[in-house]
Amino acid sequence: MMLKQALHRFTTSTRGRGLYDITGEIESWVNGQEIRAGLLTVFLRHTSASLVVQENADPDVLRDLDDFFTRVAPDDPSLYRHTVEGPDDMPSHIRAALTATQLSIPVDRGRLALGTWQGIYIFEHRTSPHRREVALHLLGE
Amino acid sequence: MMLKQALHRFTTSTRGRGLYDITGEIESWVNGQEIRAGLLTVFLRHTSASLVVQENADPDVLRDLDDFFTRVAPDDPSLYRHTVEGPDDMPSHIRAALTATQLSIPVDRGRLALGTWQGIYIFEHRTSPHRREVALHLLGE
Amino acid sequence: MMLKQALHRFTTSTRGRGLYDITGEIESWVNGQEIRAGLLTVFLRHTSASLVVQENADPDVLRDLDDFFTRVAPDDPSLYRHTVEGPDDMPSHIRAALTATQLSIPVDRGRLALGTWQGIYIFEHRTSPHRREVALHLLGE
Repeated sequence: MMLKQALHRFTTSTRGRGLYDITGEIESWVNGQEIRAGLLTVFLRHTSASLVVQENADPDVLRDLDDFFTRVAPDDPSLYRHTVEGPDDMPSHIRAALTATQLSIPVDRGRLALGTWQGIYIFEHRTSPHRREVALHLLGE
Repeated sequence: MMLKQALHRFTTSTRGRGLYDITGEIESWVNGQEIRAGLLTVFLRHTSASLVVQENADPDVLRDLDDFFTRVAPDDPSLYRHTVEGPDDMPSHIRAALTATQLSIPVDRGRLALGTWQGIYIFEHRTSPHRREVALHLLGE
Repeated sequence: MMLKQALHRFTTSTRGRGLYDITGEIESWVNGQEIRAGLLTVFLRHTSASLVVQENADPDVLRDLDDFFTRVAPDDPSLYRHTVEGPDDMPSHIRAALTATQLSIPVDRGRLALGTWQGIYIFEHRTSPHRREVALHLLGE
C-alpha cells in the first residue's frame, strides 16, 4: 500500500488565558481521512498561544498549570521592554517559548496513540479572547 | 524507491525522578527497519513524565537539570489545587509541560542525526517508580 | 502523485547568547525541492542551543526572552555541580530543555505554514560564538 498525506486547517475561539481542549476536533478530522497507521502533526500559527499535551481528567490540573506560568512570567511591565501590546503580551511570548508550537502523534489502528489521560490543548496566553489557527498534516496508509 | 513506514511501542521502567537514557533502545529498533534515510518520531504516552534531548557525557548535567526543575516547581502542596495524587503529581505535570512529549529526528545514512553529545532521555517526574510507554513512528526508504 | 523526501544540513555561526533568525535559509532550501505540500522538520544537533518559533516583528521581544531565561537559570556556579565548561554551560542545558530541539512545520501551496508573525530562530545559550548545525527533513509531493 502506498503512503499518502492530507493537510487541513481549523480555527478555535479562545475566551482569554487558559487551556482549550482540541483533541475531539483533531480526532474527528483524522477519522475522516481513512488512514489507519501514520503520523499526525499539529502546528499552531501563533506566538502568544501554544500547544500542550496534558491530563484530561481533573480540571484543577489545568488551573494550576496556568497559575504556575503566571508566577514564572508575571504580567509586570517593569520586567519587559516590549510593553506596547499590553502587560500580558511579553509574558505570552515567554509562555509560548516554554511550551510547544508543534506536536506530532503516531496514528495506530486508526487512532491517535495518545495515552489514556492525554488531551491536546491550545494554551491561550493572552488575557482577552482570540481566534487561533491550527494547521494539521497527516501522513499514512 | 518508495517511502515506507513502521510503528513500534516499548515500555521502560523508571526508578523515580530523574533521566533515563533510551537512545540505545530506539537506535536498535531503527537499525532493524532497513531504512537508510527518513524521519523517526518518539512520542511519550504520559503527562507526568516527558522527553528531553540532553548531554550524554557528564552525569552531573542530568542531576543539575533535575534540581533546576525541583526549584522551579517545588513539591509544595500549598502551591497547587491538584494535590490528591500526592505532592509530586502537579509539579510533574508542570515539568512535563516545560519539556517535551514528542521528538522527531532525521535518519541519515542509516543513523539518527543526533549530535555527538546528544542522548534521548525519558524524564521521570514522579518520585516513585513507574512503567512508561513510548510510541515510535519511522518513515523513510 | 508519489510522496518523496529530501534531507539537508547547514551550519550557522552565532555571536554569543541570543536569537538568530534562520527562517530565510530554511525557506530557500524548501523552495528548491519542488515540493508543494508536505511536512518540514528542523532538528538542532546541540544541547546548549535550541530552536524557538517567535515573533519576528519587534526585536525587543527577543531581548526580553533572553533576559527571562537569564533570570530563571542564572549563570551562577553555586547553583550547579556541572561547572567545568564555564558558568554559562549548565544554564545553557537548562535553557535548551525548556525550549525545543526540533520543530515540524506543514508545507502548504509551496510555502511553510508559518503564521504572519512567526519566525524560526536558533536560540544560542552560550556566551561565546559557536558554530551550530541544523538537520532538515522534508516530506511531500
